[in-house]
Amino acid sequence: MTKIKNDLLLRALKGENVERPPVWMMRQAGRFLPDFRKLREKHSFFERCETPELATEITIMPVNQVGVDAAIIFSDILVIPQALGVEVQMIPGTGPFIPNPIRTMEQVQAIPDIDVKDRLSYVYEALKMTKSALNNEVPLIGFAGSPWTVFCYMVEGKGSKTFDQAKAFCYTQPEAAHLLLEKITNATIAYLKEKAASGADVLQVFDSWGGLLSPMDYETFSLQYIRRIVDEIHSHAPVIVFAKGCWFALEEMSTMPVSALGVDWTITPQLAREFTHNKITLQGNFDPARLLSPIPEIERLAKQMVDDFGTSKYIANLGHGILPNVPVDHAQAFINAIKNYS
Amino acid sequence: MTKIKNDLLLRALKGENVERPPVWMMRQAGRFLPDFRKLREKHSFFERCETPELATEITIMPVNQVGVDAAIIFSDILVIPQALGVEVQMIPGTGPFIPNPIRTMEQVQAIPDIDVKDRLSYVYEALKMTKSALNNEVPLIGFAGSPWTVFCYMVEGKGSKTFDQAKAFCYTQPEAAHLLLEKITNATIAYLKEKAASGADVLQVFDSWGGLLSPMDYETFSLQYIRRIVDEIHSHAPVIVFAKGCWFALEEMSTMPVSALGVDWTITPQLAREFTHNKITLQGNFDPARLLSPIPEIERLAKQMVDDFGTSKYIANLGHGILPNVPVDHAQAFINAIKNYS
Repeated sequence: MTKIKNDLLLRALKGENVERPPVWMMRQAGRFLPDFRKLREKHSFFERCETPELATEITIMPVNQVGVDAAIIFSDILVIPQALGVEVQMIPGTGPFIPNPIRTMEQVQAIPDIDVKDRLSYVYEALKMTKSALNNEVPLIGFAGSPWTVFCYMVEGKGSKTFDQAKAFCYTQPEAAHLLLEKITNATIAYLKEKAASGADVLQVFDSWGGLLSPMDYETFSLQYIRRIVDEIHSHAPVIVFAKGCWFALEEMSTMPVSALGVDWTITPQLAREFTHNKITLQGNFDPARLLSPIPEIERLAKQMVDDFGTSKYIANLGHGILPNVPVDHAQAFINAIKNYS
Repeated sequence: MTKIKNDLLLRALKGENVERPPVWMMRQAGRFLPDFRKLREKHSFFERCETPELATEITIMPVNQVGVDAAIIFSDILVIPQALGVEVQMIPGTGPFIPNPIRTMEQVQAIPDIDVKDRLSYVYEALKMTKSALNNEVPLIGFAGSPWTVFCYMVEGKGSKTFDQAKAFCYTQPEAAHLLLEKITNATIAYLKEKAASGADVLQVFDSWGGLLSPMDYETFSLQYIRRIVDEIHSHAPVIVFAKGCWFALEEMSTMPVSALGVDWTITPQLAREFTHNKITLQGNFDPARLLSPIPEIERLAKQMVDDFGTSKYIANLGHGILPNVPVDHAQAFINAIKNYS
């Protein structure tokens, strides 16, 4: 394996000492970049995902344009339901829409055992192409949604503040819910293994909607499946788990064989360290809306964030995806503030 | 002042020993009750709010139909912007819509100093009428939104998952944001005092969107204004503050002169007690979606909740508003499980 020139992220994931924390931004491959928006006018969402040349171009943009320390492959967590035979539409300005959401045991049982290797070959192609285009400058991150988060969309059928229908499905039809979570989990394990085999240096699992569950239900409907995934994939690549809103599970998550845990901005760095007993690399947690602040304020807050997390066992990032309306020079100021941290 | 026959809530708020915890449900006056839905077909949202006879009828419904230990006046947190001269529409199935959201300092400055006593007289009428109709059976709760939460709607113009525009307004125009928060705070203080004078036995402040802020921004844009309200009103009636998602501020909030703090279901009762040093009455925190579970499961979980919070310094409630699609017998099972707790 060829050495990656900027290996700050990989070293931070190992807990090694680094000159400064690595920095990247969730959702960096996309919306806030003018060049991405130009591409979007010409190519539909799935065209961008499914055409390795386009996915590569988009993935590399933020590396070249704002100098992040890692690339994350342009894709979507909903390629998994799609591969499982569930139709997913992307409605511009609204988000995902699933015309026939899963609501019955019969529908769950009808989901076939699929060969994720075959169905999602375009993702692996994109990874290989990106890996080659990156020329070992920075590491490449592959990702998947957590089973619970993917399940939320499959059952609710669209985005939601509370995903009450997804939760109701769990509470009224727990057997069907667990069978569906199981099917998503199996597909996700195969998918992430194949991503690592295709060149992903790091794997991140996004649990965007875990924070809607009580701590007990979180264990039952989300964490046990994440744990299964982590157990299966951590020997293939270092794993980051980012469970938004799941401060209550941080301590428990820190016992998994993960290399890092992501945290959002509603927890102080001090408390995140305390909950994880200061023993694991943490990633986060700049409030994405704070990138709309004036640049000197961004610089001040970014510095404060590193002061509070410390420079070791730390990956600077946002606490969720970058907002589409963040000016590029604001994102740049954030990246630079971390790079120039002293 | 005449003694209220079922004064469990008032005693729990004082921290006195009670035979069993009092129970009520946020948003109980409304959506899940078939009789409410019938009324809704005949009368628009604001007609229901602004007609004291209708508000009284709706407020009393859950007391008579499911036997809650307190009534909460039927109203809306957005009567405050409306009283401040900002047009608020309620779009059935969608929620609040503000055609001209606040986005500039000029708009904030143009908001007049108003006499909340005059502008919101229909609320006080409704309280007096309800108080009389309740015949001192149970206490009556009056409420308001927190300044931050009301601000979110006034700036964003509608409901949102993330209220990014409201946050951006704070971060890019902090002076205008604070002036607006100030105006809302002043109106809310006068409003809540008048509610107490009109018969509200308890006052609750709802901070539905505080959990979108970082702990530091929460202090700056929300908590300092809640504190000001609490300081001004706590001598008029016992105060409950419910700040959804604000587990990180529980310890600080427990130092305010409030009688109770509400908590949502993402925090365990044990941890909520720990954060508040076991010294304040807590209210919550049943996951509203869990009322969709089968009745035996609701009974089991409700009992577990009381086991975990303990029977003293505790008010049983949901962790957020009841969902419209909860069957009445499920809500009833929840109430009964608390009443029969042993």
